[in-house]
Amino acid sequence: MIVPRLIERKRSGERLEEKEWHDLIGAYARGEVPDYQMSALLMAIYFRGLDRGETNALTDSMIESGGRLDLSHLTVPRIDKHSTGGVGDKVSLILAPLISALGVAVPMMSGRGLGHTGGTLDKLESIPGFRTDISLDAAAKQIESIGCALIGQTDEIAPADRKLYALRDATATVEVVQLIAASIMSKKLAEGLTGLVLDVKEGSGAFVPDAERSAKLARAMIQLGADRGCPVVALQTAMDRPLGYACGNALEVRESLDALKGHGPRDLMEVTFALGAEMLMLAEAASDGAHAWKLMHDAIATGTAVAKLEQIIDAQGGDPGIVDDPSLLPAARKIAEFTAGRDGFVVDVTPRTIGHGIIALGGGRRTMEDTIDPAVGFVITAKPGDRVSRGDVLAVIHARDDAGIKQGKRVLSEALTLGEEPGKCLELVSVRIDARGSTPWIRPEVSL
Amino acid sequence: MIVPRLIERKRSGERLEEKEWHDLIGAYARGEVPDYQMSALLMAIYFRGLDRGETNALTDSMIESGGRLDLSHLTVPRIDKHSTGGVGDKVSLILAPLISALGVAVPMMSGRGLGHTGGTLDKLESIPGFRTDISLDAAAKQIESIGCALIGQTDEIAPADRKLYALRDATATVEVVQLIAASIMSKKLAEGLTGLVLDVKEGSGAFVPDAERSAKLARAMIQLGADRGCPVVALQTAMDRPLGYACGNALEVRESLDALKGHGPRDLMEVTFALGAEMLMLAEAASDGAHAWKLMHDAIATGTAVAKLEQIIDAQGGDPGIVDDPSLLPAARKIAEFTAGRDGFVVDVTPRTIGHGIIALGGGRRTMEDTIDPAVGFVITAKPGDRVSRGDVLAVIHARDDAGIKQGKRVLSEALTLGEEPGKCLELVSVRIDARGSTPWIRPEVSL
Repeated sequence: MIVPRLIERKRSGERLEEKEWHDLIGAYARGEVPDYQMSALLMAIYFRGLDRGETNALTDSMIESGGRLDLSHLTVPRIDKHSTGGVGDKVSLILAPLISALGVAVPMMSGRGLGHTGGTLDKLESIPGFRTDISLDAAAKQIESIGCALIGQTDEIAPADRKLYALRDATATVEVVQLIAASIMSKKLAEGLTGLVLDVKEGSGAFVPDAERSAKLARAMIQLGADRGCPVVALQTAMDRPLGYACGNALEVRESLDALKGHGPRDLMEVTFALGAEMLMLAEAASDGAHAWKLMHDAIATGTAVAKLEQIIDAQGGDPGIVDDPSLLPAARKIAEFTAGRDGFVVDVTPRTIGHGIIALGGGRRTMEDTIDPAVGFVITAKPGDRVSRGDVLAVIHARDDAGIKQGKRVLSEALTLGEEPGKCLELVSVRIDARGSTPWIRPEVSL
Repeated sequence: MIVPRLIERKRSGERLEEKEWHDLIGAYARGEVPDYQMSALLMAIYFRGLDRGETNALTDSMIESGGRLDLSHLTVPRIDKHSTGGVGDKVSLILAPLISALGVAVPMMSGRGLGHTGGTLDKLESIPGFRTDISLDAAAKQIESIGCALIGQTDEIAPADRKLYALRDATATVEVVQLIAASIMSKKLAEGLTGLVLDVKEGSGAFVPDAERSAKLARAMIQLGADRGCPVVALQTAMDRPLGYACGNALEVRESLDALKGHGPRDLMEVTFALGAEMLMLAEAASDGAHAWKLMHDAIATGTAVAKLEQIIDAQGGDPGIVDDPSLLPAARKIAEFTAGRDGFVVDVTPRTIGHGIIALGGGRRTMEDTIDPAVGFVITAKPGDRVSRGDVLAVIHARDDAGIKQGKRVLSEALTLGEEPGKCLELVSVRIDARGSTPWIRPEVSL
């Protein structure tokens, strides 16, 4: 393998063979190919792309660079959900216990906050004692016994992807659909899944705001799954306003508890049920959408879903007492209401401004080394379209000190726009994409 | 300066500002920007190119990364010649003493063999004792006293270019016209020239065989020179067969001595005089081509040119005795003739095959670490178009041992084609390019 020749061929628009990808990525993971050659290749890929076979070979070779979550001896279906990232997106916290309570194994591998978007790992770690850095072996055992584990990407899984991702971040080569798809799928496929549901966010608060690009990414991931016998279904969901009310780590855990107890905000429950139904149908645990919604509703109503969360928290070293007594979660020292300055309608609640506002309050990271304050954030009950009167409470700020409250008010003044006409929103769930193509998403006819 | 942002902008087709190039290249030269970011930027440049202002800024910042040959106190014009590289191209060895003998300072910085092409430094070092690794200060003093110095690219000159060139070589980003032009011109402009003549080779044996690309490179270098008040003139010359007879380091020094004594092969003298005339005209030492040719002819006929070479060799630690007694040069142990196997015409003498043949005999490098045998090579007196009879001597092989002679015969059998019809050749000198554009080259009407 002569690396400059491989770079030259990709640069000239030729494809690299499967074996070449394996040799190259293997050598890179072992430190035998220097970063400066790999970054030149990545930039050539930015301009020339990767075809389906190349993307497959890259994904496989990244999986092979590390270990796998070995669940092949389990007879139950194993389904995970992945979100492209948003603000107030606590769906994983609800779906993991809810779907595993219905007899489907959920090996869920999550990430940390990235840019203005929050991360499931950060949210989980606001639960006192909760550990996400468990080994693949321990996670496999936990899934076998209680059906679910909530873990981070360990060094064991796809180390080549980890190394490549850091390099892409430093060399302006992140934004290549095939590379993003290969990166996500290398981790997901190492989980030994039998199916995967993607939540592809669209709208100004999405990590990739352009809907066409998001759909392209979804199709690339669906293709990678299909080529390995792992069916993938994607739903496009709205991220032009925060999902639910709570934005901030411990606040979102608290709202997830509410949701699992039957008191979740309507928009949050819709998106959660839409995604959960796809998980249950992939697992063949529900015959259709209406059946799936009924199953989820019952698991919440009977308390089996919230009981499963207690089990998971207990298994991963956390304090299960938070389920009955959410006041055991970290709480902010200062709390203040934010009220409407005029009569009118809520026009807009800008997720990016809220996301950056959480970071400004200390609840997110500017660099990977920052530690975060899990307690701070916003609970924004105002939704675009709501009619409000001067003095109505639109949101509550949770901060460390008075300066934080002041900061939080500035953030909300910028993020919440009031006006004469109600704001227009994206549909909560708009499109369903699977290996056969895209169709408009249709809500099951259920009244719960 | 946030490097990933600079890469991202170049990647997206934007231009970088002059100050950004200076900051970036300065930081890279100091080791503050890692190779992996620079190689991603280089690949983005491969796809997006550099505009005139960017190429200028890159060139300037590479010059500023190191020292210069300070000749500003000299009142005489200072002219160098640069060749894009070929086989049997010993023109520098003849022009340096010839033009400096005519009162023009020649600060000549040369390179080593690259690929199948030879390098002036390697040829010079076949002269016993000759040193090319002299400091910029010593070179400046030598030019002041005897009008010429023949040196290699020291670590002092444009270290950023050196570092970038090595990186480009390892990352398939060599072939970008603006980067090649900036690399060559950063070294040439650091020589403090008042003018530069380019020998742009065309034909199968050229380092860049494509004539249109070569012309594009010439135009880029002419532009870079013009933007700095250093006029550049380029001639396109033939490299579809070796230049002169001798191919191999010491053999080419010997042929250069012949040329300086008035016995050079006709094609070699034509190209040398064509380029030398441009040097003399740039220096305003000759009023027109015919005048220049006459001056060069006289400098050879009167012995002043060869005397200048003796001076240069003496100044750089070499044995000037080789001028009167070329047998003091390294000689091969085995010599054998190569004869025509049939009656007919010489159709082709392929320079690439000869160039690789010299490497095979030990007279060139496969890697930069190889040491070379200066004595080996070929003297090929057959030229395309010659009528030959079976048994005529076409060439003489100079080798280390019998295996080398055998190898040399194989090389010549492949490189020399005989046939029924005389082969067609490119014109020796075809096109002249300067800042005003391209015109057909016209031979001065002189009979020497």
